[in-house]
Amino acid sequence: MPFTLSKPMRFGDCDLTGIAYHPAYLSMLVDVNEAMFASFGITWQEIMFERELGLPTVTMNIEFYRPAVYGDVLTFNVNVRKIGKSSLDLETVVTVRDEPIWSIRQRIVLTSTTDHKSRPWPDDIRAGLERYLEAA
Amino acid sequence: MPFTLSKPMRFGDCDLTGIAYHPAYLSMLVDVNEAMFASFGITWQEIMFERELGLPTVTMNIEFYRPAVYGDVLTFNVNVRKIGKSSLDLETVVTVRDEPIWSIRQRIVLTSTTDHKSRPWPDDIRAGLERYLEAA
Amino acid sequence: MPFTLSKPMRFGDCDLTGIAYHPAYLSMLVDVNEAMFASFGITWQEIMFERELGLPTVTMNIEFYRPAVYGDVLTFNVNVRKIGKSSLDLETVVTVRDEPIWSIRQRIVLTSTTDHKSRPWPDDIRAGLERYLEAA
Amino acid sequence: MPFTLSKPMRFGDCDLTGIAYHPAYLSMLVDVNEAMFASFGITWQEIMFERELGLPTVTMNIEFYRPAVYGDVLTFNVNVRKIGKSSLDLETVVTVRDEPIWSIRQRIVLTSTTDHKSRPWPDDIRAGLERYLEAA
Repeated sequence: MPFTLSKPMRFGDCDLTGIAYHPAYLSMLVDVNEAMFASFGITWQEIMFERELGLPTVTMNIEFYRPAVYGDVLTFNVNVRKIGKSSLDLETVVTVRDEPIWSIRQRIVLTSTTDHKSRPWPDDIRAGLERYLEAA
Repeated sequence: MPFTLSKPMRFGDCDLTGIAYHPAYLSMLVDVNEAMFASFGITWQEIMFERELGLPTVTMNIEFYRPAVYGDVLTFNVNVRKIGKSSLDLETVVTVRDEPIWSIRQRIVLTSTTDHKSRPWPDDIRAGLERYLEAA
Repeated sequence: MPFTLSKPMRFGDCDLTGIAYHPAYLSMLVDVNEAMFASFGITWQEIMFERELGLPTVTMNIEFYRPAVYGDVLTFNVNVRKIGKSSLDLETVVTVRDEPIWSIRQRIVLTSTTDHKSRPWPDDIRAGLERYLEAA
Repeated sequence: MPFTLSKPMRFGDCDLTGIAYHPAYLSMLVDVNEAMFASFGITWQEIMFERELGLPTVTMNIEFYRPAVYGDVLTFNVNVRKIGKSSLDLETVVTVRDEPIWSIRQRIVLTSTTDHKSRPWPDDIRAGLERYLEAA
């Protein structure tokens, strides 16, 4: 079952041609990534400050199908595709009125914020992420 | 020959772990895309307001190799890979002290801002873009 | 009675010293201003695109009392102080756990998006704004 | 003599009505503040990471006179009005083609990034700032 979150296109998310400014989409995605972790009770604050771990994105493959305009409500549907030793593959389809408008496949790697090297997923985070794993 | 532009990592481009916030990278890229068109004398203002054309990005494939930190100077090296009837394929390698830190392959499509449909590249824009076409 | 809206400090709202990046506060405020109009049924889309009116801010006086950190939930409490012929004076106090952390007095002027000149408040917008007028 | 820096209105700085998005102005101002310190050889990186000091803004009084549009070049003219024990009062007038379009009076306070308490200006920073002090 995907993790789902809806966000409106705000005034500040639009460019001067009236459609979404793509860096604003990525900023929304960061919020959605953050909210997915919070949904299973492990906040990014805890991950970053108590556990001294970071979650950098290492690859992003994005397709934009059609523009969103001011006032549209975007629904982010996030599926976990694979949880590796230190990596996390997410696929997010963003819809407006149930029609896909853009999608992203994204790989995140868990790293130490001190040496920037990868770390294995702790069991509690792995268990939380598995909740959103696509059925085979 | 690539189009080249250097931009410093500004205070506001960093996240609280001290490295670049990836939506800020994309915002820098928009500036670089804009500057490449201006380099051959055709501004986005002219394209958008006089010609009523837009330049939406339709695909982006991004790889992040290593983090940039506050104070780094990022050099964007943009190669035009292919100019289609209405499409433009760009490959941009971003370096810090000559080392690649991230790269993006990006397809832009020229569209009308009135009906959002694709339009063929006008000859003057095509000629400008060809300046940055990779040698075979 | 003030218009009230709570917004969390998101990862992307923080600077690299771990506190709020002040332009992010202003971006949140734009969202709050937008939501206040929507609360009485008149969206900014309608104001901008159907009525061809804009709502530029002409003055802002801001005091920051203490920093907000990642994870704080900011509550924006907006009071309408005065509704002039074309102007609107707002005072917004932003609290975290009921303690003020920053405040802003802001004057907005209704203008035409075609000639950028001021316009009198339409009756329906004025009536909506009066809902949040401070008691004398 | 003021510290002066010019910045173009970029595509991403505009809102969908075609004028500047005010949080983008504040983000430009952060860049200008940062550049002023760098102009006398003391970078914010050094201040923040080596000296463990921060430069939060505590008050901002802003007036917007007329809108800037896409393609305008904004010139930021920063005068130091007063250097207190730990405080710094700046007045910045932003012009387009020599006409003021907005201005800000801003108070910054030097603080410790560890205890968030104020600290006196070190002599070298004070000397750098005095370069931009308005003549009496």
